Order: sequence, then C-alpha cells, then structure tokens
Amino acid sequence: MASELGIHRSQLRVRYAETDAMGVVHHAAYVPWLEVGRVNLLRATGAPYGDIEARGLLVVLSDLQVRYRSPARFDDLIEVQTTLTSLKSRQLAFRYRVVLLDTGTTCVEGMTSHIVVQRTTMKPVMFPADLHDLLVPWLVSEK
Amino acid sequence: MASELGIHRSQLRVRYAETDAMGVVHHAAYVPWLEVGRVNLLRATGAPYGDIEARGLLVVLSDLQVRYRSPARFDDLIEVQTTLTSLKSRQLAFRYRVVLLDTGTTCVEGMTSHIVVQRTTMKPVMFPADLHDLLVPWLVSEK
Amino acid sequence: MASELGIHRSQLRVRYAETDAMGVVHHAAYVPWLEVGRVNLLRATGAPYGDIEARGLLVVLSDLQVRYRSPARFDDLIEVQTTLTSLKSRQLAFRYRVVLLDTGTTCVEGMTSHIVVQRTTMKPVMFPADLHDLLVPWLVSEK
Amino acid sequence: MASELGIHRSQLRVRYAETDAMGVVHHAAYVPWLEVGRVNLLRATGAPYGDIEARGLLVVLSDLQVRYRSPARFDDLIEVQTTLTSLKSRQLAFRYRVVLLDTGTTCVEGMTSHIVVQRTTMKPVMFPADLHDLLVPWLVSEK
Repeated sequence: MASELGIHRSQLRVRYAETDAMGVVHHAAYVPWLEVGRVNLLRATGAPYGDIEARGLLVVLSDLQVRYRSPARFDDLIEVQTTLTSLKSRQLAFRYRVVLLDTGTTCVEGMTSHIVVQRTTMKPVMFPADLHDLLVPWLVSEK
Repeated sequence: MASELGIHRSQLRVRYAETDAMGVVHHAAYVPWLEVGRVNLLRATGAPYGDIEARGLLVVLSDLQVRYRSPARFDDLIEVQTTLTSLKSRQLAFRYRVVLLDTGTTCVEGMTSHIVVQRTTMKPVMFPADLHDLLVPWLVSEK
Repeated sequence: MASELGIHRSQLRVRYAETDAMGVVHHAAYVPWLEVGRVNLLRATGAPYGDIEARGLLVVLSDLQVRYRSPARFDDLIEVQTTLTSLKSRQLAFRYRVVLLDTGTTCVEGMTSHIVVQRTTMKPVMFPADLHDLLVPWLVSEK
Repeated sequence: MASELGIHRSQLRVRYAETDAMGVVHHAAYVPWLEVGRVNLLRATGAPYGDIEARGLLVVLSDLQVRYRSPARFDDLIEVQTTLTSLKSRQLAFRYRVVLLDTGTTCVEGMTSHIVVQRTTMKPVMFPADLHDLLVPWLVSEK
C-alpha cells in the first residue's frame, strides 16, 4: 500500500465468495471494498477508526453512490483509491475509484457521506479536534 | 407480499449475519435487499429474472444510490417497497423504500439503474418486446 | 412457516447475491441460513434470541459442520429444517437439513454447537432457567 | 505472505463488514477466509484455481468443519495457515488455522473436503495429472 497524502491506495484480491452467477463480482461486494479504502486512509492519517469508536463515537454512513463501469472478476488484483473530499465538524465525505491493478481499468467510482454520532444516543456530535486535525492534511477539495 | 400494480412490497426479517459491530444492520447489507425487491417485482410482472437470463441476457447494475435515514436492527421485520421508474429499450431503473414493518419508519431510500446486455458479449441489447410489454403496466413515471 | 414441535421449518428464497461464479449458491451463504433456522426455532419456543441478549447473554457458536449434497440455485425456494438436539446448562446444539421446497432434494445437512456466555466477560454461564424450560419441549434426542 | 512448502500463510485484515452485533467477527465470515487461504495455496503451487476452471472443471466443496476458539475483531491482522492434507484422483482436503498475527492466538480451526467435477455435468472427474503433480510436494500427511 503505497500512498501519497491526498489519495490513499489499498490493494486487495477478489475472493471467489465475492463473485455471483453472472461470473463477475456482485455489485454489493464492492461496498465493503470502499470501506476497506476508507478505514485504511483513516489509519494512515493517524486516526484509526477503532480509536474513534474507543471514544464512544461512531462514524455512520448517510449516503452511498456507486457507478459501475467495468466488471472485476475472481482473483483480480484490485486497487481502491480513496480521497477525503469533505471534512466538517460533524460530517465527512470520501470519493473512491476501484481499478484493476494490472490494466488500470476503472471498475467502479463511488462516493460516501458520513455523520459523526455519539454511540449511546446516535445523535450527531462534533468530531474531536485532535482527530479532525489529523485528517486536515488529507483533505482534497473538489472543484 | 401484498402488492398493487406500481409498487411492489417484499417482506423479510433482518438476519444476525447482516448486523455489524455498531449493533445495527451494516450499510452494505441493504444492497441485496434492494435486489430482493427488484427480483420479486420482476416475478410479479410475469417476467422473472431467471427467464431473462435463460434467453442469454443479463440485466447488469450500472448505478446505485442509497440514502440511509434510520437504522434497522436484528430481527426487525422489513418491507422493501420497489417501483419501476424507467423502462427504455436497453435500460431500466428502480426506486426503493425500505421501511420497518411495525412502525413504518423509513430506514433507507434507494435507486438503481440497469442495462440489458448479452451474456456472451456483455454488449447492450434491446430488451425482448414480450418481456418489455409485461413490465409496462408496472411503470410509474417520476414527476 | 408451518412447524410441529421438534422440527422447525423456515422458508426462504435464494438471493442472487448468494450465488457465485459456479452458477450456484456459494458454500458460505448456507451458514446464515442455518442461523435463520435457529433464530426462528428460538422465536417459536417463546425464547427469542433478542430476549436472551437483552439479559446480557450471548449464545456464541463453537462448532459448525456442513455437508454439501446438491447445489441450490438463484430463486430456488428453500426450507431450513432445524432441530434442537442438545440442551445442557451452558450448551446447546442444533441439527439442520436444507431442502429444495419443490422437490424435497437435500442441499445441505448441518450441525452447530453453542455456548452461553456473559456478554461483558465472554465467560460461560448458566442458561436462565425460565428460558431453558421453554426450550425443553423442543429437544429431540439423537439416537 | 511468507510460506514454506507444506503450510501456506495468507494475511488479511478484518473488515468492519465482517463483524456482527456481538462486536466480533460473525462466524460465517471466517468461511471465505478459509477460501482465501486455499486459493492462495493453489496459486503458490503453480496451479491457480482460475486455471482449473479454465479447463472446464470445478473444485466443489463437499464438507466443512469449523471450530471457533477465540473471537477476532475489527481491524485485527489475521493469518490463515493452510495445509493440503489429502490429494486423491478426484478429491482434495485442506486443514486451516486462523490466528491473530500479533499474539498467535488461534481464532478458528477448520477443515474442508472437495470434489473435482466437470462444470457442464457436475459429475466427478479425475484431477488433471499435470495439476495433480504440482500439488504433490505440498501434501502433508495427517498422522
């Protein structure tokens, strides 16, 4: 996983369990891959998601958009390219590109939005300032 | 499953395997539920998805949007309300509302777009006229 | 879901997401179906699993055995036949048969063992007497 | 992935999507990890599973046994240790140990048996001699 600030690169290999009877990866199986990209980006910032939960917070997903361009198949090597595109006091958003590592073909483009909530109440709360500061250098403004 | 033309209603119960460490249904687990709604709607029209594949066609997903409003939990009874919102010669689109059956609370709203392709070539093709005709009465135009 | 005491019958339909590139149900997808059968049996006894967790207990799986006999396919109607085969103070075991509803063909036979633990400590504890008593009439001794 | 002949070592990280409301990895989520171990072992032998399917064969799972010893949690680094324990003309078997990479704690022990079948007929067939020969050096006899 080589990543510069701004774009995080996670690599994974397609599991047989992620394919479906069309002979390609099932559309729902890409969604956990976006999560893998997001979790790895957070770890790279120094604010791993486990630490966020350890403070009694959850980062819940509020919006998901996925555009499917080209199928991935069993055993393909995949790169999930993840970018933090929005960082507010109570909200985060990420953008994703899932590509075949060998050819660079884009399989999927995605976007997720998230809200920071308190675990016990499920009410939105401020993202702790120290964690927020760790994410700032990774923010890539969308034109 | 009671459904009038236009909106199809599928019922299911949340599986423990669909929950995550937040104690609620994982966001990716809703995606197969939308598929359940869509597949049941197609069966209700008289054009079950298996028959479409038996003609050498696939209906592949090209776009997915999900808005998460309120969490579902283990053992909740769920209704997936599915509407066919677009029907063109090579494309289909559906809209979904996932609600808690007991309270009517909306958990998730979703939208999917699909392209009809030939299995062997993965190239877009016309949806067969007889199957298309079975779907027409279920089409609900979006305002 | 018609069930006599002793054997509980749960019905479900195979989801496309549960198939794999072999064109049949992926072997891992049967495991949540066993859970569906077990959870439905517990609900039928009057001791729904949610109530067990509400008392601060977890029923954790300790052993799983599955024998695969014949593949299930997309859209097949499935019956999960579940039997409680062992009931001790801290342990439970279930046996399963997964059949195609139309033909009665056995797809899978399974067995699971479980331990009752306290959620906070993950240590084995006694199954509460009132819940235990609700399960007793469902116990089917194995020869 | 450092592996000597005999035991193959695959590493992966627990995904949030693999956890459940007990706060640990759901028991069904380990089953695809065994598959990851098996697929990686086959690739290491020089007989990748994709090549086996490319010859019109499937290696279908006939038996699965999993013993759950200690829970894995979100973000844990996992090693799947896979051993080929039986290699006959039409059958294969593997044994697995899933451990926490940091502590060496065993989470799960597993066993799978497989049958080689022709894709078109689903009938058992001989494993091709050249592929069989590639696997022989990896076979570890069980005492």
